[in-house]
Amino acid sequence: ELQLNLEQIEKGGYDHFMLKEIYEQPDAITDTYRGRMLVDEGIIRMAGVDDNIERIANAKRIIIVACGTSWHAGLVSEYIFEDLARIPVEVEYASEFRYRNPVIYENDVVIAISQSGETADTMAAIKLAKEKGAFVFGVCNVVGSSISRETNAGAYTHAGPEIGVASTKAFTTQITVLTLIALKLAKYRGTISDSDFRYHLQELDRIPAKISKVLEENEHVKIIAEKYKDAPNCLYLGRGYNFPVALEGALKLKEISYIHAEGYPAAEMKHGPIALIDEQMPVVVIATRKGHYEKVVSNVQEIKSRKGKIIGIVTEGDEAVRELADYVIEVPETMESLTPLLTTIPLQLLSYHIAVMLGKNVDQPRNLAKSVTVE
Amino acid sequence: ELQLNLEQIEKGGYDHFMLKEIYEQPDAITDTYRGRMLVDEGIIRMAGVDDNIERIANAKRIIIVACGTSWHAGLVSEYIFEDLARIPVEVEYASEFRYRNPVIYENDVVIAISQSGETADTMAAIKLAKEKGAFVFGVCNVVGSSISRETNAGAYTHAGPEIGVASTKAFTTQITVLTLIALKLAKYRGTISDSDFRYHLQELDRIPAKISKVLEENEHVKIIAEKYKDAPNCLYLGRGYNFPVALEGALKLKEISYIHAEGYPAAEMKHGPIALIDEQMPVVVIATRKGHYEKVVSNVQEIKSRKGKIIGIVTEGDEAVRELADYVIEVPETMESLTPLLTTIPLQLLSYHIAVMLGKNVDQPRNLAKSVTVE
Repeated sequence: ELQLNLEQIEKGGYDHFMLKEIYEQPDAITDTYRGRMLVDEGIIRMAGVDDNIERIANAKRIIIVACGTSWHAGLVSEYIFEDLARIPVEVEYASEFRYRNPVIYENDVVIAISQSGETADTMAAIKLAKEKGAFVFGVCNVVGSSISRETNAGAYTHAGPEIGVASTKAFTTQITVLTLIALKLAKYRGTISDSDFRYHLQELDRIPAKISKVLEENEHVKIIAEKYKDAPNCLYLGRGYNFPVALEGALKLKEISYIHAEGYPAAEMKHGPIALIDEQMPVVVIATRKGHYEKVVSNVQEIKSRKGKIIGIVTEGDEAVRELADYVIEVPETMESLTPLLTTIPLQLLSYHIAVMLGKNVDQPRNLAKSVTVE
Repeated sequence: ELQLNLEQIEKGGYDHFMLKEIYEQPDAITDTYRGRMLVDEGIIRMAGVDDNIERIANAKRIIIVACGTSWHAGLVSEYIFEDLARIPVEVEYASEFRYRNPVIYENDVVIAISQSGETADTMAAIKLAKEKGAFVFGVCNVVGSSISRETNAGAYTHAGPEIGVASTKAFTTQITVLTLIALKLAKYRGTISDSDFRYHLQELDRIPAKISKVLEENEHVKIIAEKYKDAPNCLYLGRGYNFPVALEGALKLKEISYIHAEGYPAAEMKHGPIALIDEQMPVVVIATRKGHYEKVVSNVQEIKSRKGKIIGIVTEGDEAVRELADYVIEVPETMESLTPLLTTIPLQLLSYHIAVMLGKNVDQPRNLAKSVTVE
């Protein structure tokens, strides 16, 4: 009974750790950039980057290695690294990278991402990269973890302990750290203007409040969950910065509700997955206004004409998708590169509520471990 | 009626174009390397590569852009380009690449893959790459197509006309062309020994006969199709060279049977998808002896212990997977880099038979066009 009470206290009034951790994201993100991002001064300070700035900023290529949700955070950051810092980025599954005799040069920088810092495949990928002379930078949440000790330098996410097996706040804080690094490199390399750099900092500083606003949609998301909880399948579509969010949203649903959900870049739909769409198939479409909006609207129209059920994640005030979709969930406006930090939230809530309604063990889904420390 | 008869003649005695095209693969692959690969002399001749060998072989990076099945062929070739020619490769969805402000250098070589040579997103990606000064090489099947005219150089697959919407022989001939290019670059760059180079040619020359042998498994595959045709979901797992084959196998099933199938790198299973596995879930596992066999066997054991139904694609004489799996389909032994040309075949047949048994329109699946010429 003492154990039970302790757990209830740890859950801080929430039914599950996962829900608590979803709600902690405004604070977790703030904790992650606090002290590093000085908005008024227009400065980003990160010891692990500062101490190695020449090496990192002059990388011919950044190779990101990770697994699962961390791999999705890597995919999001690929876009921002290339867009702002103009360094080519390759994102690899750690398990594939380590076994496939990859080309690694001494002037490559490898970024390894792992919440636990104990992921076996990621650890093996780091060792391989170090053997080949690459500089390895770690992004971990658990302080003093194996990966944080094995890397040449690193930056912690300050998400606090994550207990739910399905990763939530680790994901958004990973994106936060990677965004800070990309901005810092862009400034050092001169690939971003001063005003643009400052504008990014200001907008990132507004993200926690905007996430709080998205969290107010919780009851609305619950209604949508009730509607689609019995679907045997689900598709998640996104483009650009929100393509990896689609992958992550689908992974959350798979992990805790055991519904087969799959993420796809929206434009690839026509190359196969559109054949799946009929009146039984819910399709979650991330269609924020800054992310190639017209293209995504045209994808939504195609889904509609095949009678698919559409749940749109849209920008506040959206009209075109609202007209076509069965349900929409609004997120506040922000700059395109930061939309993943907002669009991810309703997808986490959707998975959570569906799993709870289906009576699944949300915090300890079957067959899954919090960190995969064996191959 | 004349039209009907004409179509029957064109189908050459097969019930569907797709089946005909699956069976044409030994000839299509032979046609694709004939005249280019001189096994006895140990030479690969490809005008499009020969004329630009300095430019291509000295590429700092190869970027492959494609959509759908062609994107999967690109993923397969990433492994062989890096492994043999030691050039870093990045494989991109054309639709994502064109819109995300990618980093492209003048010494990059972009390889665009498209059966029809008319894919709109791939075409747009080519134009973007050319604007940035990159050299663009095309791999198309349709002679004189838009992409083949827009690229700086190229090599055709000689698959002959592909009528079935679900691509089969285009995929395996694309892999054949890309393998020849990788081998040629490896030889020019001195990253492969003479004897290894010759051994690759000899083994590739044996592939058509080995595919014919796999095709003899057709009746056996039909029995497996009968068993799993009513599954609402399916997972496909592979590692290394066979990870993209898992993606392609899943895409085939989606396209023509409308069963929601998803491909995954086998090791990523533990980071989420394993939660889906129960006694209802068929899992197709590519577990050939050369492709990290022990690792895949351990994945198979985990699926088994979660009561998943296992269909193993294995090397002739396999014992470990046979013992665990519900069904196995054997393919002849070959070198690891060439296994995709064999393991793909039973997956094509499996999708075909399931779709036929479900009464679907195999050659003209709902919602899909043969080539996606609009965004």
